[in-house]
Amino acid sequence: MDDSRDPSNSFCGETVRRAIDIVGGKWTMLILWELLQEPRRYADLQRRVDGISQKVLSGDLRKLVQEGLVAREVKPTVPPQVTYSITPQGKSLNYVFAALDRWGHEHDAT
Amino acid sequence: MDDSRDPSNSFCGETVRRAIDIVGGKWTMLILWELLQEPRRYADLQRRVDGISQKVLSGDLRKLVQEGLVAREVKPTVPPQVTYSITPQGKSLNYVFAALDRWGHEHDAT
Repeated sequence: MDDSRDPSNSFCGETVRRAIDIVGGKWTMLILWELLQEPRRYADLQRRVDGISQKVLSGDLRKLVQEGLVAREVKPTVPPQVTYSITPQGKSLNYVFAALDRWGHEHDAT
Repeated sequence: MDDSRDPSNSFCGETVRRAIDIVGGKWTMLILWELLQEPRRYADLQRRVDGISQKVLSGDLRKLVQEGLVAREVKPTVPPQVTYSITPQGKSLNYVFAALDRWGHEHDAT
């Protein structure tokens, strides 16, 4: 798609599309939002992200770890304790969530 | 979920979750992104949002019109010409896409 070079675009279309591809899924965003608050264990995430299936949660977490946005830490207890936390790269998504918060307040007010 | 009142949250969790619910899907975001550039006809959207099914595109557009983020205009030609455009409410999502663009550039650089 060559419209990303269209000078009428205020910013780069390809970058936005790629960012949406990485973090734009509804469940992915809800998981990231939870981890931006604090590190969480798998079961805690599943409880907080209301309605998410185990398959989607596991798949999204694996993708986020691969992308370097989330870190997975396993404590060698019995049973092993797995904790997910946001990485500095993931933390910089705070801008996006702040923008969503701002928009949400405006949208509610209208 | 009562953690939205947790003082450690820098902004309101409920508002962010609701915003994600409205605009957070990958396809929804890609459609909004296209319409933020300029009004588009249905077939044009389908071509630009690469890989979207007709069912998802129609459903997402209907939801966005209901939410007041997108306007649907039908010209009484034969066949009728349907054009979708962003409303002022939808336009204020520009913040969110600007934040995604900023994050995308940072993410690419690391």
